[in-house]
Amino acid sequence: MTDATEEALAAIKFDTDGLVPAIAQQHDSGEVLMVAWMNRDAVRATLSEGRVCYWSRSRGKLWRKGETSGQVQHLREFRLDCDGDTILLLVEQDGVACHTGRRNCFFRAWRNGGWHVIAEPEIDPEKLYPGAAG
Amino acid sequence: MTDATEEALAAIKFDTDGLVPAIAQQHDSGEVLMVAWMNRDAVRATLSEGRVCYWSRSRGKLWRKGETSGQVQHLREFRLDCDGDTILLLVEQDGVACHTGRRNCFFRAWRNGGWHVIAEPEIDPEKLYPGAAG
Repeated sequence: MTDATEEALAAIKFDTDGLVPAIAQQHDSGEVLMVAWMNRDAVRATLSEGRVCYWSRSRGKLWRKGETSGQVQHLREFRLDCDGDTILLLVEQDGVACHTGRRNCFFRAWRNGGWHVIAEPEIDPEKLYPGAAG
Repeated sequence: MTDATEEALAAIKFDTDGLVPAIAQQHDSGEVLMVAWMNRDAVRATLSEGRVCYWSRSRGKLWRKGETSGQVQHLREFRLDCDGDTILLLVEQDGVACHTGRRNCFFRAWRNGGWHVIAEPEIDPEKLYPGAAG
């Protein structure tokens, strides 16, 4: 690991679980695609590989976005907020970001006193995760 | 509190501290302004008042954005992600979102092996928080 990467890590305030939330935003359209979590190793992998790697809290391991689905997020820029406790990733998203097959995860909107689904799947989730349970 | 608001809350997965992260995004430009946290009462206040209210973890109380600084976030849409554990707020931001006086909080970018400040303050923080310690 390079000294530079350690400098990047030193500015980030990880929580007591060693995690920090990361927003993925499509770099040109500004679309907010998803939010997931990173630990130190996920940050190292993302910066060194130029593709986004999260920490999967449910699986308890590094999660190179797209490793199963092919929906890779190519890193365009890595930004940090004023408090150092949230990361903003500007990315080029291959295909869709959401495991439901939708372009982004924020497809429920609260309108007129109820939840409304405002985007439909662009890809069948079965095709993203062949043989997966869900 | 209306039944509708309780329906909104029922879809949100708050963490073990009763909190959920919320992204504020400028509704027309797509600029990601900031990330903060909401508890149930903050969601109730945001939906009923039409302006964004967070939960301040440092102060341990509701934080109606702009109540001190005047930098109010007017709610345009309230969205929820696929897992129900992250909120996306589309807002009309009065003035600047960041306590440093910058338009948004993500003003540090990792470029060529170092952190670079990519935006300057638009307002003197002293004018946002007169008499505040910092």
